[in-house]
Amino acid sequence: MQPLRLKIALDMMGGDHGPQSTLPAAIEALCEFPHVDLVLCGDAELLTTELEQAGYLNHPQLSVQHASQTVLMTDKPSVALRNKRQSSMRIALDLVEQNKVAACVSAGNTGALIAMAHFVLKMLNGVERPALISSLPSTAGSPVFMLDLGATVNCDSDTLFQFAVMGAVMAEEVEGISRPKVALLNMGEEEIKGSDQIKRTSLLLSECADINYIGYIEGNDIFSGKADVIVCDGFVGNVALKTCEGVAKLILKRLETALKNSMSAQLFGWLIKPFLKSMSLGVNPDQYNGASLIGLRGIVVKSHGNATKEAFLSAIRQAVREVERQVPVKIKDRLEHVLIDKA
Amino acid sequence: MQPLRLKIALDMMGGDHGPQSTLPAAIEALCEFPHVDLVLCGDAELLTTELEQAGYLNHPQLSVQHASQTVLMTDKPSVALRNKRQSSMRIALDLVEQNKVAACVSAGNTGALIAMAHFVLKMLNGVERPALISSLPSTAGSPVFMLDLGATVNCDSDTLFQFAVMGAVMAEEVEGISRPKVALLNMGEEEIKGSDQIKRTSLLLSECADINYIGYIEGNDIFSGKADVIVCDGFVGNVALKTCEGVAKLILKRLETALKNSMSAQLFGWLIKPFLKSMSLGVNPDQYNGASLIGLRGIVVKSHGNATKEAFLSAIRQAVREVERQVPVKIKDRLEHVLIDKA
Repeated sequence: MQPLRLKIALDMMGGDHGPQSTLPAAIEALCEFPHVDLVLCGDAELLTTELEQAGYLNHPQLSVQHASQTVLMTDKPSVALRNKRQSSMRIALDLVEQNKVAACVSAGNTGALIAMAHFVLKMLNGVERPALISSLPSTAGSPVFMLDLGATVNCDSDTLFQFAVMGAVMAEEVEGISRPKVALLNMGEEEIKGSDQIKRTSLLLSECADINYIGYIEGNDIFSGKADVIVCDGFVGNVALKTCEGVAKLILKRLETALKNSMSAQLFGWLIKPFLKSMSLGVNPDQYNGASLIGLRGIVVKSHGNATKEAFLSAIRQAVREVERQVPVKIKDRLEHVLIDKA
Repeated sequence: MQPLRLKIALDMMGGDHGPQSTLPAAIEALCEFPHVDLVLCGDAELLTTELEQAGYLNHPQLSVQHASQTVLMTDKPSVALRNKRQSSMRIALDLVEQNKVAACVSAGNTGALIAMAHFVLKMLNGVERPALISSLPSTAGSPVFMLDLGATVNCDSDTLFQFAVMGAVMAEEVEGISRPKVALLNMGEEEIKGSDQIKRTSLLLSECADINYIGYIEGNDIFSGKADVIVCDGFVGNVALKTCEGVAKLILKRLETALKNSMSAQLFGWLIKPFLKSMSLGVNPDQYNGASLIGLRGIVVKSHGNATKEAFLSAIRQAVREVERQVPVKIKDRLEHVLIDKA
């Protein structure tokens, strides 16, 4: 069976590199997904010139949607929301809202994207706040979904509960994990464990038959594969993810120093270099995989601001998968089901 | 000038290995610190037998203080506090409170130690809550002090402000860093940055001339050396530290797999192994350095539960340094000074 045609909007101007990395990614996606049409949002003149140079002008899967503004990485979210209505980011989101495309992908300013997506697309029924979710690697081999990575700073227990349901749906639909193990991120000590919100969320989850809740998990087990879905508030998730990046840098720096200080190791540096590179990619998931903004009435995938062509392409893949698995509808259905069961 | 004699109590029964790692550490400390007397708290019969076997019975720097109970790693803090008044942990803390020793060191149950220390020693004037602080490695080479690592889950802005002052004193006194750069751990987005407590703490710190406050820092900069002291609440600090452990494990696992899959790498495995080992030690600071419980009227150093002889010895060193630098008095003085300046 031939897959149905679908259309995705790309914010071409976002990220540190703009079209320099978004355009090669878009071009590569054409081959990989012959059933996907791409709407390139950005400066039409610039994009047309670049497409012409690359020999892709008038390609049947491509169209250009002009945007006279660009959201800068330094723009404050509220300012971007107010003053950048003609930006490539906003226009890509508007296309989702108008049902002209099935999803959008951006490597732009995360805060602005969250604020705009929330404003333009609105929340799904039953979801109070959006969450940023990404899949991380694990020592067990299978990916681990973690949310929220920074969309919602203060989460009450209902919000965390909704995040757990959404995370389970993502793990099932995107990775095909059946009855994914869901855990709450918490700190170590038995008694002083976490805040009241976390304790209440734990209670809500253990009473919910639709969720395969396995209890608390600590930071040292994020990557162990004990859980398929890890739930926390946006502040903690953001700090944890960024800390990973910091540790990875520290380890690589130490390894390099150790190698430099050893004569024999210097000789074999060529042997180690590719490992270092692959490790740093795999361990900085934020820099490699796209993160999805979920809980909204539409699909928004966020690629890292410093995204390379490969990272942006990986975010496009993620968007295609979420469209094909109809993730927002599945989240809405699951939440309704859970709420009926609870009532 | 000969250093003054000082006395330190050791909880010999704490940690996963008990006297198996605490006793060899104590014996090694005798040589390293000829001016330090050690009070070994624990099962007197067991300790005497072990000391006799090691040839250290009746050593002039050693005395044994019998304790009929042991706090288990699985004991709930409140239960330990109520029912384990004859434990080695409690007796070591009582000796500090009675001014019979200048500090105590334990590798036992962290939650129980915090609860007991708080109850027995009480808070310093001007400090509302205790904090667990440890020094972490950085790519810049200098250590970074981070607090709170799990003593106080919910921190208001006054508590976080006091943590900042205490952390600065530790960096100055223990590491000799003058005007240490103090930062608040926060998440990335400019506008939605952190909670109201963090924003208010930032305001308090920027108004305080006694603190060299450099603003917010993100998780990826914990190990960069940008800040000498990083302040956060106990929940976030605990998750961040444990996450480091998880990432380090993941990287080592990946490196091992990569090495196994490469023929040539297998040959040079012997070359890489020592690096892996040194990295994992340096990157799991929690497992290697002692953490200090500060803000109390006495010095309490916590060694990791899984502490080896080296780790417990390193915690004893930390205690000696804090006694010699009179850390609690310095914290009290600094806080009084800061509060007078503020008034």
